[in-house]
Amino acid sequence: MNKLSVGQDTLVIDTQDEQPKHRIQLKKVGVKNLKTFLMTKKGGLRHHIIAKVELTIDLPADTKGVHMSRLIESMAEVISDEFSLHKSIEEIQIHILDSLRRRHFFNRAEIKFDFDFGYTSKTPVSGKRTWEVCDVTSVTVKENGKPFIHDISVRVTGNTVCPHSMVNNGGMTHMQRAIGTLRVIGTTDQVPSYGSMIEVIENSFSSRTYSLLKLEDEMHVTKQMYDNPLFVEDVCRGILQNASDTYKDRILDMFAEARSLESIHKHDVIAEGRIVTNGQ
Amino acid sequence: MNKLSVGQDTLVIDTQDEQPKHRIQLKKVGVKNLKTFLMTKKGGLRHHIIAKVELTIDLPADTKGVHMSRLIESMAEVISDEFSLHKSIEEIQIHILDSLRRRHFFNRAEIKFDFDFGYTSKTPVSGKRTWEVCDVTSVTVKENGKPFIHDISVRVTGNTVCPHSMVNNGGMTHMQRAIGTLRVIGTTDQVPSYGSMIEVIENSFSSRTYSLLKLEDEMHVTKQMYDNPLFVEDVCRGILQNASDTYKDRILDMFAEARSLESIHKHDVIAEGRIVTNGQ
Amino acid sequence: MNKLSVGQDTLVIDTQDEQPKHRIQLKKVGVKNLKTFLMTKKGGLRHHIIAKVELTIDLPADTKGVHMSRLIESMAEVISDEFSLHKSIEEIQIHILDSLRRRHFFNRAEIKFDFDFGYTSKTPVSGKRTWEVCDVTSVTVKENGKPFIHDISVRVTGNTVCPHSMVNNGGMTHMQRAIGTLRVIGTTDQVPSYGSMIEVIENSFSSRTYSLLKLEDEMHVTKQMYDNPLFVEDVCRGILQNASDTYKDRILDMFAEARSLESIHKHDVIAEGRIVTNGQ
Amino acid sequence: MNKLSVGQDTLVIDTQDEQPKHRIQLKKVGVKNLKTFLMTKKGGLRHHIIAKVELTIDLPADTKGVHMSRLIESMAEVISDEFSLHKSIEEIQIHILDSLRRRHFFNRAEIKFDFDFGYTSKTPVSGKRTWEVCDVTSVTVKENGKPFIHDISVRVTGNTVCPHSMVNNGGMTHMQRAIGTLRVIGTTDQVPSYGSMIEVIENSFSSRTYSLLKLEDEMHVTKQMYDNPLFVEDVCRGILQNASDTYKDRILDMFAEARSLESIHKHDVIAEGRIVTNGQ
Repeated sequence: MNKLSVGQDTLVIDTQDEQPKHRIQLKKVGVKNLKTFLMTKKGGLRHHIIAKVELTIDLPADTKGVHMSRLIESMAEVISDEFSLHKSIEEIQIHILDSLRRRHFFNRAEIKFDFDFGYTSKTPVSGKRTWEVCDVTSVTVKENGKPFIHDISVRVTGNTVCPHSMVNNGGMTHMQRAIGTLRVIGTTDQVPSYGSMIEVIENSFSSRTYSLLKLEDEMHVTKQMYDNPLFVEDVCRGILQNASDTYKDRILDMFAEARSLESIHKHDVIAEGRIVTNGQ
Repeated sequence: MNKLSVGQDTLVIDTQDEQPKHRIQLKKVGVKNLKTFLMTKKGGLRHHIIAKVELTIDLPADTKGVHMSRLIESMAEVISDEFSLHKSIEEIQIHILDSLRRRHFFNRAEIKFDFDFGYTSKTPVSGKRTWEVCDVTSVTVKENGKPFIHDISVRVTGNTVCPHSMVNNGGMTHMQRAIGTLRVIGTTDQVPSYGSMIEVIENSFSSRTYSLLKLEDEMHVTKQMYDNPLFVEDVCRGILQNASDTYKDRILDMFAEARSLESIHKHDVIAEGRIVTNGQ
Repeated sequence: MNKLSVGQDTLVIDTQDEQPKHRIQLKKVGVKNLKTFLMTKKGGLRHHIIAKVELTIDLPADTKGVHMSRLIESMAEVISDEFSLHKSIEEIQIHILDSLRRRHFFNRAEIKFDFDFGYTSKTPVSGKRTWEVCDVTSVTVKENGKPFIHDISVRVTGNTVCPHSMVNNGGMTHMQRAIGTLRVIGTTDQVPSYGSMIEVIENSFSSRTYSLLKLEDEMHVTKQMYDNPLFVEDVCRGILQNASDTYKDRILDMFAEARSLESIHKHDVIAEGRIVTNGQ
Repeated sequence: MNKLSVGQDTLVIDTQDEQPKHRIQLKKVGVKNLKTFLMTKKGGLRHHIIAKVELTIDLPADTKGVHMSRLIESMAEVISDEFSLHKSIEEIQIHILDSLRRRHFFNRAEIKFDFDFGYTSKTPVSGKRTWEVCDVTSVTVKENGKPFIHDISVRVTGNTVCPHSMVNNGGMTHMQRAIGTLRVIGTTDQVPSYGSMIEVIENSFSSRTYSLLKLEDEMHVTKQMYDNPLFVEDVCRGILQNASDTYKDRILDMFAEARSLESIHKHDVIAEGRIVTNGQ
């Protein structure tokens, strides 16, 4: 039997609430590739971000569909509340899931934002301010009866220098652009800031990279690369060790990936690993 | 002979200023895929944007290379000047090219920004505010002795409904997501606002699309689609005609593209055309 | 202490075999985004494929690096063996991992191919042959002491038609392109053919799609869409149910995703689920 | 007035042949992002290719639409003709446009294929065979009363080594992956083979790159990079000069681009230029 609800002036058949043909539970149903804009304000610093959003909930075996517009309304409510600027992306995500809770039943809800994150840096010798941009993916999950869990990945561009070639080649070697990723999973009070994660990654490359380099900076960076030859394996382990040291007081499940866009090959090389801190 | 200049404490060889091996003039040399952040403020409305930048200049046949860091410095100078917020993206681009002129010789310079542009809309029946995002590419070109030329493309998502299927199929038809593009080329005082270009494109679809639609809105949009079946050819011509009508007082070279993500095929269908207004 | 091995005419320092600075085990180390070409022949039908390859092994905590060239050599050996054409992509992957086993120590090795897969279809009324292409990802994993495991995903394009809009809107509705994914995990004798997986997915859409449709075919497809309105939730459950019915004699862990490129929104909607068959 | 044609058993209204609302000529109307498979055979060597296709024709101001299925039929006819294998991609394109001419009026038709192109190479010292893949875009244009024109772009991955850093930094420098593009435009008897274009590009890098490198090869490649430091400007000019020398007996309009994925920056640097050979 169809359920009925009252629309504008008319009875509406809520197809979503009917029995499905196949009674199979679904883990995630919702919207994806939705672009929206977000604002955060923390300590006087505003971030305006355009994010690609995925917002999903589980669907019980006996229900045909999700009321998709309620997912969007939960987002719209939080985003449009200009008078209460949020301190972080994760705070926005928590508020959206709280708002969704009041609109739609779920056992598990998940919201993911993919976005470019801008930060400032300083050139190593000339000391000029530079603007840098990295990739962030932030996921917040709410399961009934459990705390909010955040799953945050930060991807930063640096470089690697081959130690094997250097030692066998009289100091000559090949070097290349590399991408380091740190992913942390933890509760709201445990996950670190993006800035801190960027720092952990940048310290793990042969050298960090900059949008602006005057000649004296370029010489410094080049020398640092020769002084610090690293395989992707070394960069990946470096990220894991740095993260483990930096976040030793926190409870975090952490993953790292290093990918090197080899200058002597058309393909990349990668290394992936995992480390866990238990806050003690 | 190498030219020398004074670096930090040392003589520097300016390899860029040497003679190249092959004396061939190059049309564009510079940086690409550089991400940076930008702010504009117009009538109380602030836009914070992360753009992908391409900034290039021509290179004479007798010069080996471009001093790349001067391109970045020109951008950094304009972006970091927080006290003079720019009114538009194109104003930022003009200031960067002006700044570059003082740092590096060129006959022709070109700066391109690719970015997501957010705007608000209203659902057609329930009147709720929605947040929408479209793609913008803005290019500004400066050739010596000529005015700045802007080449702006706006891409917006809407839909098409097949009129051929509808008329041959007893009112049944196929419909699909579509992407409309309007590109305008003109001088600084002639090019229209992004908002106006979005409006031109959205009015050319079978229906515009929204991130949020309550049931009454969804019914309205669906009905409008059935009342307004359009081929991509119709959408493309519609954009051209609407643009020509809207901008008839301006001098613009304009191009339109409509692309339909066919629901009955795995491929897309497209239509492209051009129209010119001479401001009279 | 560095280990030494004999290269062409010289002693070589095998940096990879040294102790790493941080003694952390890595789960995956290897090559990624390597493009190569592959051939299979089964029952007279040849497939030539250009695949994007990821080939990785684990790295123990006390070893600094992987000998990357041995991974490539394992692939080259198998690919260049033109006299023994392989019957399937998975057979090629098994042979590469076998070859790698003889060259490099690992506890766990994994090889992934991403590629376009072409197949022929027939238009529904005019009966013309059409050429269709779908996306396939095939992963083969070998852990010491365990059988080869294959993890195969097939993504096919079809469409969805909104049942909610149809019932509330006097038979008018919105429809759109959709992408269905079926992923199966099982041993070599349990995983099905790509063709069979394509069939399962195509039968789960409101209608399948074709590269060529004459008018009579287009009418047929359109009518079928109106007769078979489905949410993404329905398509996802349909794939799971069809797969479960088709592969009930096999032992498979299966996942499905349906994604709909909504014609009334700029965003997509998705549904994801899982089903397991135990071969009884 | 609608035109009528006879379909299966019924009168069909050919909406496409009606008058459009806005009488604006369109430059290109057709299909895009259509994937299909192609075979060529030349001198015993078969290439099987999956290409992304764009096939478009112009549309006069007084005609509402293009009969899209005729575009697909033209392709299907040529592709399915297994008994007459074509010698080149461009020959396939010519046959498709010839086939289209018999089905649909046009003043100008254009067909574009984007695809991965595989070729074999040899490692520089160990002499092992390697499999390499590059990107090709091939466009064939037919305007009434004019010969077929081909517009072919080949993109190959190599590397650059900074000469400025090397000379100012005591032999230390930064190096990185780079992508070289050569684009040639000419008639059927003038355009060169892909293999020849690949050769021109690979000879213009600091060093070419290989999927497989044994240690002795890696040392050779690294040494070659140090011996041959090149800006992107040098690589771009090198491609143009090599192409001009290699194709001096042909009439070709040629463009080159070099893009370097800087290892000390997050962004790329590029150089673009053009050269013309007149066959004398």
